[in-house]
Amino acid sequence: MNKVTLSVRGMTCMGCVASVRKVLEAIPGVAEVDISLDKGEVIVAYDGAKTGQAQLIQAINDAGYEVIE
Amino acid sequence: MNKVTLSVRGMTCMGCVASVRKVLEAIPGVAEVDISLDKGEVIVAYDGAKTGQAQLIQAINDAGYEVIE
Repeated sequence: MNKVTLSVRGMTCMGCVASVRKVLEAIPGVAEVDISLDKGEVIVAYDGAKTGQAQLIQAINDAGYEVIE
Repeated sequence: MNKVTLSVRGMTCMGCVASVRKVLEAIPGVAEVDISLDKGEVIVAYDGAKTGQAQLIQAINDAGYEVIE
């Protein structure tokens, strides 16, 4: 299992958090999503054989939020 | 130019509104996006030759919000 912490800009309420959670959980291989609205942090546990960091970032960006490198 | 009004569930702040706006404006053919957070309404003006209602709904759903039929 892989784990990555991403800094995400644009989440300003629990609706935003729910939106980011939903698009990430829709990706096959994503096991767990933990989001801190305060810190603007998204922690994702995923199966590296099924998905990758680029795909996670793409999904967040596609949802209208911005992953900060 | 076509215009459609969609009822969208899940937008709870201006961050959500910005997210929905961003994914819609990224679709080729979308000319104008007008969102009412209070009403949960998204009004989209678009070129029907370039995109369609199904694509607009898909984009909103993919962003983690729910278009109510």
